Amino acid sequence: FIKDPKTVAIIGCPFSGGQPRAGVDQGPIHLVEAGIIDQVSTLGWKTHFEGHHQFENIHVEHDPPQGILKRPKLVSAVCKSLSEVVGKHVHNGALPVTLGGDHSLAMGTISGTLSKHPDAVVIWVDAHADINTIETTPTGNIHGMPAAFLLGLTSAPEFAWVKPILKTNSLVYIGLRDIDPGEKKILKQNGITAFSMHEVDKYGIGEVVNRALDAVNPYRDRPIHLTFDVDALDPDVAPSTGTPVRGGLSFREGHYICEAIAETGLLAALDLMEVNPSLMAEFDVQKTVSVGCSLVRSALGETLL
Amino acid sequence: FIKDPKTVAIIGCPFSGGQPRAGVDQGPIHLVEAGIIDQVSTLGWKTHFEGHHQFENIHVEHDPPQGILKRPKLVSAVCKSLSEVVGKHVHNGALPVTLGGDHSLAMGTISGTLSKHPDAVVIWVDAHADINTIETTPTGNIHGMPAAFLLGLTSAPEFAWVKPILKTNSLVYIGLRDIDPGEKKILKQNGITAFSMHEVDKYGIGEVVNRALDAVNPYRDRPIHLTFDVDALDPDVAPSTGTPVRGGLSFREGHYICEAIAETGLLAALDLMEVNPSLMAEFDVQKTVSVGCSLVRSALGETLL
Amino acid sequence: FIKDPKTVAIIGCPFSGGQPRAGVDQGPIHLVEAGIIDQVSTLGWKTHFEGHHQFENIHVEHDPPQGILKRPKLVSAVCKSLSEVVGKHVHNGALPVTLGGDHSLAMGTISGTLSKHPDAVVIWVDAHADINTIETTPTGNIHGMPAAFLLGLTSAPEFAWVKPILKTNSLVYIGLRDIDPGEKKILKQNGITAFSMHEVDKYGIGEVVNRALDAVNPYRDRPIHLTFDVDALDPDVAPSTGTPVRGGLSFREGHYICEAIAETGLLAALDLMEVNPSLMAEFDVQKTVSVGCSLVRSALGETLL
Ligand SMILES: [Mn+2]
Ligand SMILES: [Mn+2]
Ligand SMILES: [Mn+2]
Ligand SMILES: [Mn+2]
Ligand SMILES: [Mn+2]
Ligand SMILES: [Mn+2]
Repeated sequence: FIKDPKTVAIIGCPFSGGQPRAGVDQGPIHLVEAGIIDQVSTLGWKTHFEGHHQFENIHVEHDPPQGILKRPKLVSAVCKSLSEVVGKHVHNGALPVTLGGDHSLAMGTISGTLSKHPDAVVIWVDAHADINTIETTPTGNIHGMPAAFLLGLTSAPEFAWVKPILKTNSLVYIGLRDIDPGEKKILKQNGITAFSMHEVDKYGIGEVVNRALDAVNPYRDRPIHLTFDVDALDPDVAPSTGTPVRGGLSFREGHYICEAIAETGLLAALDLMEVNPSLMAEFDVQKTVSVGCSLVRSALGETLL
Repeated sequence: FIKDPKTVAIIGCPFSGGQPRAGVDQGPIHLVEAGIIDQVSTLGWKTHFEGHHQFENIHVEHDPPQGILKRPKLVSAVCKSLSEVVGKHVHNGALPVTLGGDHSLAMGTISGTLSKHPDAVVIWVDAHADINTIETTPTGNIHGMPAAFLLGLTSAPEFAWVKPILKTNSLVYIGLRDIDPGEKKILKQNGITAFSMHEVDKYGIGEVVNRALDAVNPYRDRPIHLTFDVDALDPDVAPSTGTPVRGGLSFREGHYICEAIAETGLLAALDLMEVNPSLMAEFDVQKTVSVGCSLVRSALGETLL
Repeated sequence: FIKDPKTVAIIGCPFSGGQPRAGVDQGPIHLVEAGIIDQVSTLGWKTHFEGHHQFENIHVEHDPPQGILKRPKLVSAVCKSLSEVVGKHVHNGALPVTLGGDHSLAMGTISGTLSKHPDAVVIWVDAHADINTIETTPTGNIHGMPAAFLLGLTSAPEFAWVKPILKTNSLVYIGLRDIDPGEKKILKQNGITAFSMHEVDKYGIGEVVNRALDAVNPYRDRPIHLTFDVDALDPDVAPSTGTPVRGGLSFREGHYICEAIAETGLLAALDLMEVNPSLMAEFDVQKTVSVGCSLVRSALGETLL
């Protein structure tokens, strides 16, 4: 489904409205300044980049909380616009790589991918499940809820445009370790396959990726949307992120996941989310941005051998 | 064997007499101040805590070395008293969680557990085997000897009360990596199953825990006493301890062990030993205390999913 | 093939001519000062050490680049002399342990081992493949080329003495993660078995060492030359080295490899290369030297249990 010449469309999405910390909107700028576009070119991809300003003209006059939901109009508007941009690239046979920004953006990216490939599966790499509903969210920060909207487990008037097109058996998690009690129930009740760090320890990352693919893509024939929250990595590896959690994926485990998905030849879209260069010291920021770039390269086919 | 309402009896044991470094007696105070009791309550346990003063009135007038043994009367008296306290809670159907203090205390805790459950097995997570006899100990520090007393491999008049009730096939080690030459011989001659860090690397922690349980508890029907020395963890993970050794269990491997034992439903008693908040900088102390709390939570049923 | 009394010949090789950074020539001095000789004795080996001056009198008047090759006369002369020293010890039934110095020295050590044991296999533990030819080397630093010379994939008049005696099916790599494009082609075209960090993640280090041995030594009957570049280890573990690369072997994985090879009873020669004590702060240098010593001990039979 990727047409020749194989093209990556890099979508800078400097957005922080789905959570309270300033700075995550600077993630894509840092990743691009670190050379991610050239690096992707070197791997043999044609690259397409329209700058970081695509979503800048989205302004919302008055955006009070709707119930517990914070900034619903803004999050909805940006995600809708992003959905269209991602959808356009997928329809054109390019592979969209969205650089966030906070993880509420996954509503946009995954909606975009599914608009062309309704059979696509989602591999969600994250310390968190981001599957709170309006009923369960403790904070109302929408970056903790995109999966619930995409699966149709929750809804709000502002998000009527999000089609509940993702099936629970088409979503699999890797890296979970900080799940709210309400989310644990949702995962169980809906039978969603999730590999927490417990399973990574128990089976090893090689076996976990195999099992994750077997769960949602047993015949290895469905397109894959990989949405990677850098907080899936251990804070020692990727410290500059808004909600770090101890006991995460190692540098190598994170890259292994990307490499193994690249090997399937099925990657249709990629998100790299939650790099926040305003958190932690300069050295840590560089480390996080650098690991962000190398995760993207691994997912796009860079190999060690 | 845990009665309803499921109760944890937290036993603070601020004792450092089994080794030479001051400060390990402050371990339980820090763990309690960090909120371990509330955390255990949140997991659905009724909690019982009698404060840190239970063993304070144990004074020993004159306690010279007996041969090489240092402070034998004091260590013996505290362990004997602890054995009675642990035994009382086990008999009442509660799950005793002993917060050390140095690892000589295991003579007390394990004696207490075995007084009610003579068929209990011991899973000993440690960088060290703590199995020196009076003949092999290079230092006479009793925290390096509790296993030898419990197995009846050594004895001393002062410790006549310690029944050699633990069988060599009911004890299994995980995490070993700093074993004295005399201890290596003892382990081999007695056929004690031990998984060093070599085996953790070779098989992975998931398989190691399976094999450890298979070795001592093949039918998964015997109560488990888990005695966890924080120095089993890598010094990067738990730096504030008296005898740190490189190449230890990762944060995740340590928690995996506790989670996997919790899953068996067989945990009868738990020790968390050798947290020494007077060693290392404040940041390291907090890290060590925090990991101590989360190990206890994992062993008491906290899960990632 | 090791005669009684089992003897280790420690060969200090303070040489840095195969690469541009000063200081790697100080590696062997630091390792010896850290006590490596006594440590090896404690393991039950007779030790033989002729000091660091064996190669000091090798001077080369005029040593301009030959094409892209830097310092070809000096590198060749030292490697030739080292080859004779290693060969002499192997012929005498001793186990040579060469402390580098940069990895160009492997031309000498492996030539020496093969002069007595033409059926020996080479296990090359490294972040790099060191297999550039004169055509592919981007730098002309010979420490990136020894494998190519030994395999007869490249040659130069100055290195005519290096017999292409190593077969491509007698060489296996572990730890690779920074391979030049030309090297990737060479590895593939020659069908050389290599376990990169991707495979270490995928299978675990236990399985990787098994597979590596199966690949070159299926009947476990051929002598093993282990050439260990400390940069195979993660820079967190061994920071003081000239070309560190993220995502390397953990402390434990590095030792596991050595322990597992020691278990085969087939070790015929050992190199420890690229310790550079002039790089990084004192604490990092001590860490690197200390891990260098413990890797050697593990390869020579030190066990955890
Ligand atoms: Mn997320
Ligand atoms: Mn997250
Ligand atoms: Mn201990
Ligand atoms: Mn210990
Ligand atoms: Mn090398
Ligand atoms: Mn190297």
